[in-house]
Amino acid sequence: MRVIVINTGTELLLGDVVNSHLSFIAREIFPLHLRVEQQLAVPDGMAIRDALAENFARAEIIFVTGGLGPTTDDVTREITAQLLGLDLVFDPAIATSITERLRSRAIRLTDRVLRQAQVPRGAEVLPNEYGSAPGLYLAANLNPPIATPHLFLLPGPPRELQPMFREAALPILKRIVRGNESIGYCSYRIVGMGESYVEEAVGPALLELPGLELGYCARMGEVDLRVIGPATVLEEANAIVRARLTHYIISTEGENLETVIVRELAAHHATLAVAESCTGGFLAHRLTNVPGASEIFVAGYVTYSNKAKISALGVPADLIAKHGAVSKAVARAMAEGARNKSGADYALSVTGIAGPAGGSVEKPVGTAYLALADGGKTVVRHLFFPTDRETFKQLTTQMALNLLRGRLLVRPS
Amino acid sequence: MRVIVINTGTELLLGDVVNSHLSFIAREIFPLHLRVEQQLAVPDGMAIRDALAENFARAEIIFVTGGLGPTTDDVTREITAQLLGLDLVFDPAIATSITERLRSRAIRLTDRVLRQAQVPRGAEVLPNEYGSAPGLYLAANLNPPIATPHLFLLPGPPRELQPMFREAALPILKRIVRGNESIGYCSYRIVGMGESYVEEAVGPALLELPGLELGYCARMGEVDLRVIGPATVLEEANAIVRARLTHYIISTEGENLETVIVRELAAHHATLAVAESCTGGFLAHRLTNVPGASEIFVAGYVTYSNKAKISALGVPADLIAKHGAVSKAVARAMAEGARNKSGADYALSVTGIAGPAGGSVEKPVGTAYLALADGGKTVVRHLFFPTDRETFKQLTTQMALNLLRGRLLVRPS
Repeated sequence: MRVIVINTGTELLLGDVVNSHLSFIAREIFPLHLRVEQQLAVPDGMAIRDALAENFARAEIIFVTGGLGPTTDDVTREITAQLLGLDLVFDPAIATSITERLRSRAIRLTDRVLRQAQVPRGAEVLPNEYGSAPGLYLAANLNPPIATPHLFLLPGPPRELQPMFREAALPILKRIVRGNESIGYCSYRIVGMGESYVEEAVGPALLELPGLELGYCARMGEVDLRVIGPATVLEEANAIVRARLTHYIISTEGENLETVIVRELAAHHATLAVAESCTGGFLAHRLTNVPGASEIFVAGYVTYSNKAKISALGVPADLIAKHGAVSKAVARAMAEGARNKSGADYALSVTGIAGPAGGSVEKPVGTAYLALADGGKTVVRHLFFPTDRETFKQLTTQMALNLLRGRLLVRPS
Repeated sequence: MRVIVINTGTELLLGDVVNSHLSFIAREIFPLHLRVEQQLAVPDGMAIRDALAENFARAEIIFVTGGLGPTTDDVTREITAQLLGLDLVFDPAIATSITERLRSRAIRLTDRVLRQAQVPRGAEVLPNEYGSAPGLYLAANLNPPIATPHLFLLPGPPRELQPMFREAALPILKRIVRGNESIGYCSYRIVGMGESYVEEAVGPALLELPGLELGYCARMGEVDLRVIGPATVLEEANAIVRARLTHYIISTEGENLETVIVRELAAHHATLAVAESCTGGFLAHRLTNVPGASEIFVAGYVTYSNKAKISALGVPADLIAKHGAVSKAVARAMAEGARNKSGADYALSVTGIAGPAGGSVEKPVGTAYLALADGGKTVVRHLFFPTDRETFKQLTTQMALNLLRGRLLVRPS
């Protein structure tokens, strides 16, 4: 079934708000084997009329977000009723719920607010527990002979739309799509292999499977591979992907690398400390974004100055003088120092030159060294990512976390 | 001029990635008095053909994002050339730059990668400093009699698109819209005052000025106020805003708080250390995102465990036992410890409960304490942000940085 999302809202087109509706709706309907075929954003006001009329024949399901509120440019409800030739009927139950909601917040009731109690004849009301405007569902071809798709009119604020979608829209969608259940989906997150290598490794073999569709999505330091197709073929596809991408696959649940690391360390009953120079706290930040990180994360040392490397980590001053702060020797000493000072089982360190200044011919901007200390022989890696500061931080911490992941893989938990 | 944004990318329609391009482009073109009239997202592959063809007559400027990469479903370049009846010409300069880029990263060159060196005849190349696919600009009506708007083909990854947009697309846009220069624009970034307070403080007075248009944009811990209008009136508007929002204005250049802090500390020839618990390195990360941070940032201590607070910062163990790790007393001891250990002039500390677990009736999730030590009396602040983990980190570090900004404001540099 073809699905179209239409977002109304001038704030989206002015860039004041990032549109999160598309990504939310797409993920919610995916398990129903529904995919958004196209998405459209138009300003508040009459633009919704053309957007709807043009897409009636193109979709079986249309989700409209926004334009259900009380202000004059909120016209989604009225325009939809007009296009479908339906009367608006005053719904006293909605009016009561709005009145009570406003009274409990000591907000004055205006006529405008009560426009939200108007319902196109025959529409199903989707209750709004977090705002006053209810959503509306208009079944396909509600007012023959006008041909229309299934229409869901949803409120603009995400905190109102999201619970309404889950509680009221999804059950209706399940009714609509019943019987379309043979198509499945697998997703693989891959770290340590670039997009074109991934495609080279699995693309040709996968494309020989009948009815299989592939998608690649490259982000900084990781690639998502998606495989969509009939359940029978998916199994074969999975075998190919597993055999060829092996340990490069870090998750099939869309988890990020730091989440995998926190879970793996917890499974190993192991703790971690980090010592960072050029990544400036970003490695610690990523790890501590994971709920439950406190179980495995002990301490981070952001030793930006040489003095801090010496005092906080016990890196010998003459080592820095001899090799420079950005060197294998100092990376090793930082990791070992962090492990000793913190008492953690593992310690990762990063030292490098994020730029834009600070590079030299020998050690250009983008140079970095990683080390991983675990009480055995400390492993050191050289990296080179000549890019902007934030990308450098992202890629370097990604490699650091992946170095640790590699170590955890070979150790039974 | 009518502006349309077309985003290609199956990952957008599957919800794997939130579309940030619309909001970025909308903000960037705003000062040129351009606004996006409509935005459209379509999957990778041939869908871009209809999206382009249908919108050629509806817009004077179209921005296309995505589909310039090396994989088989990247077809934006080819489809555009086809629609405009233009040959694709191999550009050896692009090929050289791609080849060098890959070689410096020790990545093997494939034929697919070199597709990115194809340029529709007559198009202007927009260099990509952070990726291999260059952007393309095709002037309006490039191949008469085919009527086309100005077309900008931009790469999908935001870290490639954003610098390219600022450095290569904006100068071309300025050429295109020239003549519309009597209208000016001021922008104020405000920290420490909520959106509705800002509106109350300046809204009524500003709206009395003839021809002035106002825009508010609230983000986490900051509000942008935009004032658009004739140059003569802008001066008056500026006087009103300055008089009423005074030191709440942190920048008129769109700078973020950490950039302001790094510049102010450098002007004071002062250095900073931070000690973090619940923000887990994010405070250090924000500061070290600013180029030149190494001049003022000495060290960060991410003392997640109590043991680390004691060993790295010298927080007395009995202080933690008596007051708890999340307390005024421990925040103060962390800031003073970080200042002593690092030798920095200023030290900021944060300790709190980011959640989702770890809260209690007395200290619920969202509780945090900040402290600022500068050798005089250490200042401590209590905060309460019961929200998700990442928002908590953002708001808490924003308050910490703003506490330091307030201190620097009253000290002459």
